[in-house]
Amino acid sequence: MTLNEISKNLNIECSNDVLITGLNTLSDANENEISFLENKKYINDLKNTKAAAVFVKEEFASQVPENTVALISDEPYLKLAYASKLFAPKLFDMVGKEPIIGDNTTIMPNVYLGVNSIIGKNCTIMPGAFIGDNVSIGDNCTIYPNVTIYRDCILGNDCMIHAGTVIGSDGFGFANTKEGKYIKIYQNGNVVIGNDVEIGSNTSIDRAAFNSTMIGNGVRIDNLVHIAHNCVIKDGCILVGQIGLSGSTILNEYVIMGGQSATSGHLEIAPFTTIAARGGVTKSITEPKKQWAGFPLMDHRTWLKLQARIAQLLK
Amino acid sequence: MTLNEISKNLNIECSNDVLITGLNTLSDANENEISFLENKKYINDLKNTKAAAVFVKEEFASQVPENTVALISDEPYLKLAYASKLFAPKLFDMVGKEPIIGDNTTIMPNVYLGVNSIIGKNCTIMPGAFIGDNVSIGDNCTIYPNVTIYRDCILGNDCMIHAGTVIGSDGFGFANTKEGKYIKIYQNGNVVIGNDVEIGSNTSIDRAAFNSTMIGNGVRIDNLVHIAHNCVIKDGCILVGQIGLSGSTILNEYVIMGGQSATSGHLEIAPFTTIAARGGVTKSITEPKKQWAGFPLMDHRTWLKLQARIAQLLK
Amino acid sequence: MTLNEISKNLNIECSNDVLITGLNTLSDANENEISFLENKKYINDLKNTKAAAVFVKEEFASQVPENTVALISDEPYLKLAYASKLFAPKLFDMVGKEPIIGDNTTIMPNVYLGVNSIIGKNCTIMPGAFIGDNVSIGDNCTIYPNVTIYRDCILGNDCMIHAGTVIGSDGFGFANTKEGKYIKIYQNGNVVIGNDVEIGSNTSIDRAAFNSTMIGNGVRIDNLVHIAHNCVIKDGCILVGQIGLSGSTILNEYVIMGGQSATSGHLEIAPFTTIAARGGVTKSITEPKKQWAGFPLMDHRTWLKLQARIAQLLK
Repeated sequence: MTLNEISKNLNIECSNDVLITGLNTLSDANENEISFLENKKYINDLKNTKAAAVFVKEEFASQVPENTVALISDEPYLKLAYASKLFAPKLFDMVGKEPIIGDNTTIMPNVYLGVNSIIGKNCTIMPGAFIGDNVSIGDNCTIYPNVTIYRDCILGNDCMIHAGTVIGSDGFGFANTKEGKYIKIYQNGNVVIGNDVEIGSNTSIDRAAFNSTMIGNGVRIDNLVHIAHNCVIKDGCILVGQIGLSGSTILNEYVIMGGQSATSGHLEIAPFTTIAARGGVTKSITEPKKQWAGFPLMDHRTWLKLQARIAQLLK
Repeated sequence: MTLNEISKNLNIECSNDVLITGLNTLSDANENEISFLENKKYINDLKNTKAAAVFVKEEFASQVPENTVALISDEPYLKLAYASKLFAPKLFDMVGKEPIIGDNTTIMPNVYLGVNSIIGKNCTIMPGAFIGDNVSIGDNCTIYPNVTIYRDCILGNDCMIHAGTVIGSDGFGFANTKEGKYIKIYQNGNVVIGNDVEIGSNTSIDRAAFNSTMIGNGVRIDNLVHIAHNCVIKDGCILVGQIGLSGSTILNEYVIMGGQSATSGHLEIAPFTTIAARGGVTKSITEPKKQWAGFPLMDHRTWLKLQARIAQLLK
Repeated sequence: MTLNEISKNLNIECSNDVLITGLNTLSDANENEISFLENKKYINDLKNTKAAAVFVKEEFASQVPENTVALISDEPYLKLAYASKLFAPKLFDMVGKEPIIGDNTTIMPNVYLGVNSIIGKNCTIMPGAFIGDNVSIGDNCTIYPNVTIYRDCILGNDCMIHAGTVIGSDGFGFANTKEGKYIKIYQNGNVVIGNDVEIGSNTSIDRAAFNSTMIGNGVRIDNLVHIAHNCVIKDGCILVGQIGLSGSTILNEYVIMGGQSATSGHLEIAPFTTIAARGGVTKSITEPKKQWAGFPLMDHRTWLKLQARIAQLLK
């Protein structure tokens, strides 16, 4: 689709026929992608973007770089939402290659394998599993019953996905109209999972809005964990039951989070950090190897001290 | 079934042969339904009920209206439980009409469609989905893999239900016998979902004990959310990941609840209320458009102040 | 497999050819099982163990009983992990008996029944359910759509398992190598569920590492509950939505836990205890029939008092 066609579709004036392949953030967009500025916080990213075009309010139009087209709108995020639908892949492809299945792999009954899917060697795909179009699964993987892997997701080798878990469901994203209607941001990214990852049962990992939700090598994820879109979980992290990670959380290597702990979105946690059970992380943690607890989060020893003070209060 | 037959079944004396069609609350019951009074709090509802009959302790029998039969019992709630089984629909119907499927709708492999189910136009029902008997789904809906929609539930147009989500499972209800056995309150209601609703993956929405659990138009629900029986979620509400709503919670229009927040049961939240992540709502909120946080819940600014005081405690 | 063969496989010296049938804890192991000591806390269990052999550090070797072989290693837990793989059953058995299905039981379409499985009388197994090898289900049970019951699990009579629930997924267990790799402890136990148990939708109950995760008679479990490996939930307990129980939690008879409450692992709760919603139990509760709340947990009345003090803080 050309920028022209897209603009016309969204009722924005523009006369540029560069080919557009998708949407992306200001910092990640390439010269064939459209981006957006909704939050002033990202103004520096705007100045440095390589995007072909940017949805932007008039007041920031002058900050748009020379090689980038300013698509001026009062509601740039809403325009992004409408545009996202134009790039959404189909729910399933009508045509494509037969699935490729490696040696010594067992596909049990009632499994759905989408077109262009690739399953490696020595895998077992158990009954009721759904493997969407273009999904790629490495060698020596076990996909337990009733797992759903949405289209375009990628798993490495030696992974084990327990029953009922969902990989690649849509992130929770939408823009508001002035009339109070929510317009879906189509989640056109995917989930990419490394090697040697075990994921428990009934866990949900959302696909990215753009690019990929990333799960690194050796990660262990327990049951009923919620991982929102665009999270990046690096090698060796451990996520215990019922954790909730908000969108775009970055966990660096070997972060350990206790049961029912959570993060608010768009923050980063330093390597080898430990978050106690129920801890609620609302800001980035930059110093590695520390232990935290509580909500709001505090140094684990401070939290213990706080409990002592609270006990005193009660005397 | 006549009131006579039901009473006989439950070992209560009664000689009235009005036809009974089901059970209901005191305030909602009509002249062909039975209700109950267990909690004195609802004594005014008893006085005004239109129910054909009411399970009631002897001490409240005199308050039962003239046209309503008092079914006297030491354990009215337990009698209700036993009665609920008499009205429970079958798990599946042996006979019924073939499903009706609208134009341009795709039913993918391994889908189960119950008798008397109706699927609208331009829908996609993905592999492993279960659509129970008498389920009605509107136009332009996507039901992702391994979704379960229990019998008798209703979805509007333009809905998207992500993988692994369950709509219409039984609410958590039972009465105790004196011997410590739990007797199930059969959940004979359903779930009714409006138009333009998106529900994430691995979420559970329970059917009503009587009547309907209601999800309004435009509602957005994230992953791993628990919505108990008889909740009413009005138009435009947003429920973020891992929220838990207890039974009979009413969210008025455009309530926003953050991740892992929760409500205790039988309360109502005013329109345009915002509950911060982890907020725990234990009482009704009557003033609209306010922001709340914490558990116990407090005004969001008070909560911030409290955190500052707690920080002082630690110095 | 003989102890010799196992030791050789793990590069430990040993010349004893007793037949080994599996792994177990120090206190539960019999004379054909191997156990381990990682945590000094269990030194008394070591002294009294009946195990055929024990993975143990050199410093504790002298405490190993006469009839038990000390398998000396710097990393006994890691050795246990490697050994656990040797005893892991196959994902599914290639041969075995046809499932046995009781009178008047309905197996709906798209159900998978593993070899050697036994389903009792008057059951309904709904579409998309997976019943693994050697699973035994009693009479009068309902297994709702898309439920997964892993191999070797046992359910009693009169059970109802709602849609999307997973019974018998692997517990969250692994040992660390010095290089930061996690080695899976294969979860070779199962889940045993008593009679008259109802479990909500999208709940996860993990199988035991050794022996069984136990759910007693009459237990009621709500939606999205996480029950980790080796928990023991005795008769009459009630677990409300989104509870998380860590590994080896013991709930004695008639414990009631409110929504989103949780336990840390290896603790025991006295009979008739009530934990309020969001309560976090971090130590054993020995006195029965008390009510608790908060995190850290405190007497429910103390918790109410604390809230009052906190309110004062804000004045």
